[in-house]
Amino acid sequence: MSEPVTQLQSTADLNRFSETAISESTAPSKAGSSHASQSADLAYPDRFVDRHLGPRKTEMQHMLGVLGMKSLEDLIAKAVPQGIRLRRPLQIDKARSEYEALADLKAIAGQNQIFRSFIGMGYSNCITPPVIQRNILENPGWYTQYTPYQPEIAQGRLEALLNFQTMIIDLTGLEIANASLLDEGTASAEAMAMSYGLVKHNANAFWVSQACHPQTIDVIRTRAMPLGIDVIVGDHKTFAFDIPIFGALLQYPATDGAIYDYTEFCDRAHQAGALVTVAADLLSLTLLKPPGEFGADIAVGNTQRFGVPLGYGGPHAAYFATKDAYKRQIPGRLVGVSKDKNGHPALRLALQTREQHIRRDKATSNICTAQVLLAVIAGMYAVYHGATGLKRIAERVHQMTALLAGGLQKAGYTLSPDPFFDTLRIDLPGRADEMVQRALARRINLRKLSEDAIALSLDETTSDLLDLLSIFDASPELLPAPWQISPSFARTSAYLTHPVFSQYHSETELLRYLYRLQSKDLSLTSAMIPLGSCTMKLNATAEMMPITWAEFGQIHPFAPIEQTKGYQILFQQLERWLAEITGFAGISLQPNAGSQGEYAGLLVIRQYHQSRGQGHRHVCLIPQSAHGTNPASAVMAGMKVVAIACDPDGNIDIADLNAKAEQHREHLSALMVTYPSTHGVFEEGIQQICDIVHAHGGQVYMDGANMNAQVGLCRPGDFGADVCHLNLHKTFCIPHGGGGPGMGPIGVASHLVPFLPQHSVISVGSTRGIGAVSAAPWGSASILPISWMYIALMGSNGLTQATEVAILNANYIAKRLEGYYSVLYTGKNGLVAHECILDLREFKKSADIEVDDIAKRLIDYGFHPPTVSWPVAGTVMVEPTESESQAELDRFCDAMIAIREEIREIENGTRDRSNNPLKHAPHTVADLTSDWQRSYTRETAIFPTAWTREHKFYPPVGRVDNAYGDRNLICSCLPMEAYES
Amino acid sequence: MSEPVTQLQSTADLNRFSETAISESTAPSKAGSSHASQSADLAYPDRFVDRHLGPRKTEMQHMLGVLGMKSLEDLIAKAVPQGIRLRRPLQIDKARSEYEALADLKAIAGQNQIFRSFIGMGYSNCITPPVIQRNILENPGWYTQYTPYQPEIAQGRLEALLNFQTMIIDLTGLEIANASLLDEGTASAEAMAMSYGLVKHNANAFWVSQACHPQTIDVIRTRAMPLGIDVIVGDHKTFAFDIPIFGALLQYPATDGAIYDYTEFCDRAHQAGALVTVAADLLSLTLLKPPGEFGADIAVGNTQRFGVPLGYGGPHAAYFATKDAYKRQIPGRLVGVSKDKNGHPALRLALQTREQHIRRDKATSNICTAQVLLAVIAGMYAVYHGATGLKRIAERVHQMTALLAGGLQKAGYTLSPDPFFDTLRIDLPGRADEMVQRALARRINLRKLSEDAIALSLDETTSDLLDLLSIFDASPELLPAPWQISPSFARTSAYLTHPVFSQYHSETELLRYLYRLQSKDLSLTSAMIPLGSCTMKLNATAEMMPITWAEFGQIHPFAPIEQTKGYQILFQQLERWLAEITGFAGISLQPNAGSQGEYAGLLVIRQYHQSRGQGHRHVCLIPQSAHGTNPASAVMAGMKVVAIACDPDGNIDIADLNAKAEQHREHLSALMVTYPSTHGVFEEGIQQICDIVHAHGGQVYMDGANMNAQVGLCRPGDFGADVCHLNLHKTFCIPHGGGGPGMGPIGVASHLVPFLPQHSVISVGSTRGIGAVSAAPWGSASILPISWMYIALMGSNGLTQATEVAILNANYIAKRLEGYYSVLYTGKNGLVAHECILDLREFKKSADIEVDDIAKRLIDYGFHPPTVSWPVAGTVMVEPTESESQAELDRFCDAMIAIREEIREIENGTRDRSNNPLKHAPHTVADLTSDWQRSYTRETAIFPTAWTREHKFYPPVGRVDNAYGDRNLICSCLPMEAYES
Repeated sequence: MSEPVTQLQSTADLNRFSETAISESTAPSKAGSSHASQSADLAYPDRFVDRHLGPRKTEMQHMLGVLGMKSLEDLIAKAVPQGIRLRRPLQIDKARSEYEALADLKAIAGQNQIFRSFIGMGYSNCITPPVIQRNILENPGWYTQYTPYQPEIAQGRLEALLNFQTMIIDLTGLEIANASLLDEGTASAEAMAMSYGLVKHNANAFWVSQACHPQTIDVIRTRAMPLGIDVIVGDHKTFAFDIPIFGALLQYPATDGAIYDYTEFCDRAHQAGALVTVAADLLSLTLLKPPGEFGADIAVGNTQRFGVPLGYGGPHAAYFATKDAYKRQIPGRLVGVSKDKNGHPALRLALQTREQHIRRDKATSNICTAQVLLAVIAGMYAVYHGATGLKRIAERVHQMTALLAGGLQKAGYTLSPDPFFDTLRIDLPGRADEMVQRALARRINLRKLSEDAIALSLDETTSDLLDLLSIFDASPELLPAPWQISPSFARTSAYLTHPVFSQYHSETELLRYLYRLQSKDLSLTSAMIPLGSCTMKLNATAEMMPITWAEFGQIHPFAPIEQTKGYQILFQQLERWLAEITGFAGISLQPNAGSQGEYAGLLVIRQYHQSRGQGHRHVCLIPQSAHGTNPASAVMAGMKVVAIACDPDGNIDIADLNAKAEQHREHLSALMVTYPSTHGVFEEGIQQICDIVHAHGGQVYMDGANMNAQVGLCRPGDFGADVCHLNLHKTFCIPHGGGGPGMGPIGVASHLVPFLPQHSVISVGSTRGIGAVSAAPWGSASILPISWMYIALMGSNGLTQATEVAILNANYIAKRLEGYYSVLYTGKNGLVAHECILDLREFKKSADIEVDDIAKRLIDYGFHPPTVSWPVAGTVMVEPTESESQAELDRFCDAMIAIREEIREIENGTRDRSNNPLKHAPHTVADLTSDWQRSYTRETAIFPTAWTREHKFYPPVGRVDNAYGDRNLICSCLPMEAYES
Repeated sequence: MSEPVTQLQSTADLNRFSETAISESTAPSKAGSSHASQSADLAYPDRFVDRHLGPRKTEMQHMLGVLGMKSLEDLIAKAVPQGIRLRRPLQIDKARSEYEALADLKAIAGQNQIFRSFIGMGYSNCITPPVIQRNILENPGWYTQYTPYQPEIAQGRLEALLNFQTMIIDLTGLEIANASLLDEGTASAEAMAMSYGLVKHNANAFWVSQACHPQTIDVIRTRAMPLGIDVIVGDHKTFAFDIPIFGALLQYPATDGAIYDYTEFCDRAHQAGALVTVAADLLSLTLLKPPGEFGADIAVGNTQRFGVPLGYGGPHAAYFATKDAYKRQIPGRLVGVSKDKNGHPALRLALQTREQHIRRDKATSNICTAQVLLAVIAGMYAVYHGATGLKRIAERVHQMTALLAGGLQKAGYTLSPDPFFDTLRIDLPGRADEMVQRALARRINLRKLSEDAIALSLDETTSDLLDLLSIFDASPELLPAPWQISPSFARTSAYLTHPVFSQYHSETELLRYLYRLQSKDLSLTSAMIPLGSCTMKLNATAEMMPITWAEFGQIHPFAPIEQTKGYQILFQQLERWLAEITGFAGISLQPNAGSQGEYAGLLVIRQYHQSRGQGHRHVCLIPQSAHGTNPASAVMAGMKVVAIACDPDGNIDIADLNAKAEQHREHLSALMVTYPSTHGVFEEGIQQICDIVHAHGGQVYMDGANMNAQVGLCRPGDFGADVCHLNLHKTFCIPHGGGGPGMGPIGVASHLVPFLPQHSVISVGSTRGIGAVSAAPWGSASILPISWMYIALMGSNGLTQATEVAILNANYIAKRLEGYYSVLYTGKNGLVAHECILDLREFKKSADIEVDDIAKRLIDYGFHPPTVSWPVAGTVMVEPTESESQAELDRFCDAMIAIREEIREIENGTRDRSNNPLKHAPHTVADLTSDWQRSYTRETAIFPTAWTREHKFYPPVGRVDNAYGDRNLICSCLPMEAYES
């Protein structure tokens, strides 16, 4: 500009100069256009939204053209029912640049205060080995992996999980372990549910030791209530088994540190027909007799102290181990050994028939996530340290505790327990607060047990006892013999004897092992993972960086609230944003998985009805097309599931809904509905559906799995939902981590806010709320910065644009595949929402080709297959997300079209019906070296198109035989000889 | 223990309980041995040395057995001459655990103060895109790569460097660019040397603009002096070309921000027969007419502001571009396009015949490193932003500067220059100090130009001008037109038009591009890289983490010394440790590459002689076996090289040394010697050699390349060396980064300390010292934490043990290959030092097999080849380092033995002499799909042993044709069509 326009008051003013942000599509300004540059925006020019979205502006134009749409708004107007559209921008802060958002979040994080924690209660500070932190936790090659449903491209994390299972089996002394659960509290609740399922004919009561961690008892109570289970909390030393119980839960060592001999208790429980679950500290099991050796039927616990940061409560991997006899009842995921088509050992998820998405309302658990990334870390911690290393760590922790005890004893304090491992109880009649305060002055947190006692737990990081002792005016002192762990408690059995726990103790060897495993897994670093319903979008680096900041990682979940101001600010802002996005009045961040969100949301509805004297309402209507977790969650919430039919277009059959609502009007509790539907369509009738349920006294629970098609366009709270859970690991960019962590907060309308979850240790929610659904008050707090960053980076416009582009990308795929595959369901204008179902059933007859053949063949083209046979058998569901570029979508479509041509060759007899590239897919490099008796060339096998030479992922094994593995179930590491071919 | 032993006063006392640290080999303690645990060490049990070393204790025992040695000490006593052994432990702090060392270093780092910097001078704060930071800078898949001498397993970084070269060519408007140099100062000096070489018949003077950055002038002066070049510093506006010059150096924009039209100057220089070098700011070139368009022959500069942290001065990648006519004179590495054996495009280092290791004392430069990791980052920054993005960043910086100028002008300040880009000069008669102080109070650094003027430079991170303006009691104000960049300076030409700069603008696309490139490169994450002389040991994660801490990264090299207390502590401790390790009195951390260390060390010797009136001493004795950099450095230091013969055992021929020393006794300046020798042997005569040189008035310069065989066992300063450089990127764990950064500090004996390098901006060294050899006072300061961590983690015993195991590993390989290959040189007891040379020359005759065939065949076995044909043609030199496990060494030996059998099959006629697995190596997956007309199976080609199915790296291209590429030199990105096959 040629003259000063105005005097500006602030840089913010400057930024307002030009609100028309420079867009990616802007052509480089012309020769010598210094003039043009003068009118540029002074905001930082790099806009995150352009990094998050795949297609460039010109590509979007092209894609819209292919769809015959004039603009993105045109497309959205035709795809989304007008009646539910949000007619204003989301009230979310303006988009920040990555640099700004990181600085802002750093400032928030800085308001957390890192005190040394001796609180214990199942959470211990620990050391994440740097090689594991950088190469797993901070590595997109690991954290962007999906759940290992396609084992041929998931052998790396499956092996890491097999290591984890082996570690748990060894340390607990039990026979089989799963690949992790959400937290110790929910794992204990799962143990209760499993026990109930196994022996409920006996009794209706579950006995819980008062020596369990309080948050575990809390979660157990919540879970027991809707199932009608009585929870009896008592003292194991005095319980006379005079009440019939189906199961019992013990803590080992106890929450105050005591190590009890539970052998007799187990014997008596078994005599009474009950199963015993022991919640055990994993590190202590390197020194103590394991639960499997004193009679436990189930062992559960937290593996956090095996290298996973405290993270203000999570995510961590809980473990679950039991006897072989109960292997088909184990909740969650189980990794097992099978073989591939060439007979080589190959891993995969075992016994998938147990899964809630098969069993639906027959399931005893709704759990479908694991905490894979954290289980991998914990397992690798054992690989890194081995038996000797772990034992040394445990011995040192114990030794330190003994020195502390000696010092305190000499100084005249009354200590218990005896024996102990890492936790001491100090009786301080009337002085507990004083001591806690003295500790705080030294930036140390102790646990207050009562007004008269405190407890403190040591951990791997404890190095300086002097500070701690000085609180008590004591000095370190060796402890006399009686304090030692007596032989009756000492572990005698070996553990971690498999070579994997001793081969990789140099960092170089471990590093290479991690990379060998990583190279076997297809992650988002390789290609699109177009999994319908799973929203495998970009997990941006700037979103991921904060989670390994010490200010977020080194905070104990039960640290005094004054020390966690940074977290509180984060929660408040995130809750406000999520409430605005969903149109709800309140948010609970406690549920730490989508399934937990469903469960919590239904409990809230249940509590609401009860508060109005409508406790008899217990019928939950669920469309046939629903996720399997829906009916499973409903059952867990004590509801009776009534199925609603779908019409031929895949929409809810409104007549049937009306009829069922009418039929159950006295008992109608809720409808569970997914929107857009699991068929990938914006149903026009959603408002009507909600109205019908409300008219019959029910509440509408919305499954938020498909929220990625709604953000900024419409809001569940506006069009009739009362509760909705959000999969932050789908719509809000928390990575899938190879099968967890997830995060499933719920939003609720104002009338339900009073019923949001509480917590027994840290005050959250109102006193009318449901009990705790997770062990930690804010679930997996330490990954919430990811979603905070995403929203801060995108801002209102960016979030909305992401939704629009997600819908554009899905419709572009549907359009490009038109004429090759039929899209099973579309909405009013022939459009899909953010995903589309391709019907492959015709090829079974025409060419003997099944959906799996096509899925595996896609691997040869370098892609992760879409969701297979869900929600409709014989189909695939494709969800590209907004983060995929047109180039990637085109490659995918080209691959699908090429596969269609391969099928056509079978159909027209050019290729054999059994000897063809689809039946033999996926192809390995080793296949190429074999005697080639195929009807197609090696090149067709491995490089079916020119671009596969550059965009290629080599699967390490051939097609895995699932049935063989289930018939010959092996869920721990194989002897090395098994791999020698 | 059964009773308290004693009352302890401190945790340190506790740690002293048992100084016999528990070792890895300790068997898991027996059943119930809680008693045993009582005597355990209370130090943190995880010892880093056990992570750093490859072999476990039991493996070491086995390997010693194979060698017929009783113990490690036995081996060392036989391998290392007794006369030079250090008979006491190194005086280095006790080893710290990773957790402790990170905490200690964090505390040190915390003593650096991060002020906002407006100092400029060629260093600008910038934003490292998080996706690049995490996936390149923090990714061992990139940072542990070696220099790309083996192009078949280095296509990824070669492509990244080709992008870098293309970016430089485009932005400078010149025709060819190299793959980076060390810093802007040395790049300018290289430009001077190249100009001198090209036109030195004309004149002996190099003209330098006074508007150049002072540190550049400093480095130029240092480099010019020993070569006898006169440096004339003047004003380009007034220089009349009345003195003959061979070249000139200009700064664009000038150091005070002025943008001059240098067209006429270039014309006049050319008329005078001189070449013009322009040191140009890369970001400004997106807006300003590039040097190539106004007559520059060479352009140099720093690429730091393209996404590389300030890091207190380095490492950063400098660039060097020139005209096509001078392509064979370009210093440093050049990446070029060639083709592989199947005719597909393939990249490799071009024109390697230019390299100083070929040209030796005929070389005009000793540079052999590049700053690959940093060049890759800078190139990716351009890939990430593209032309439009870079231009927008530049426009915003300029716009901000204009607003600042407007505000200052309105407030009445006298400003220059006009036009400007990002830097303003403010005349403040007598008030410069006051303003600098006012800025400091706001945690802002300004540049003081004189008592009467300051300068300030804006950058990409500048967002809030108000703070800055408030120093001057001013407000932002739009600037009137005259301040704009006039059309005569504005850039009109396009740049970054290659698709690579526009295809990867979404994070997902960039992430996948980075991973595709990474997957083409074999790094330490895959396998051993047994490169003789290069010491590819573990670069531990804990060592690497600190370099991306803001406290180290965000410090300007010329920040006031009071703000850099953390760095100063780090330098002092590291210098003390390195002095102790080498036995020297003083250390200079300034040389930022090994070659720079040589050059600096020889200059110190030169200065020393001069200080004693012995300036005529200029003869440098260099054994024939020396690294090529040695003679090149000697020439750069103004010395005459006289070669010393080697005896048949590869040792220095002492008779010849005596004779030459005698012959040149009047002029003898120095001997350069590598120890252990480049032949991988501890020469027994090293003390005698040093004595001879000293007796003839010379100084002994020791090349520290092989220091990894000495640490803790012997010290150069003890047995006669006067100077030694240390390759911190070899012995002290700085990773090779794919070909840089390196770091080459020098240690000197006390009589040489006064002559260590100075610096013109920040006070280092004494006034008697040589001038600056690097642009920054402490070279590449921000990677020094790596070496600090290594030493802190290892401690005295650990460091020594590392050396011992390095020697053990090398001897184990030599022993295992006995009978298959002959080891060319061994020491007194038939032992090698830390590496061994395998003689492959016999196979040329016996089987037509050359060293390259064996090297490439090793790739099929999953290994990076050893050093090829150096120091002896037709041999490979193998250096395993201490970080490789016995398993990896055995795999390597098995591969070598298997290859020997393959050769034997050729020798005995079983296989064809041209159609065999060695001649066709390395094999690609694509090869397997071809029509197979080979005398061996596909399996033999790709999986020559069973373990290659698990330990495998698939090269993306077949053997690369080097000669073709040199005949058809292309050094920028190919059009995309070239890749369509």
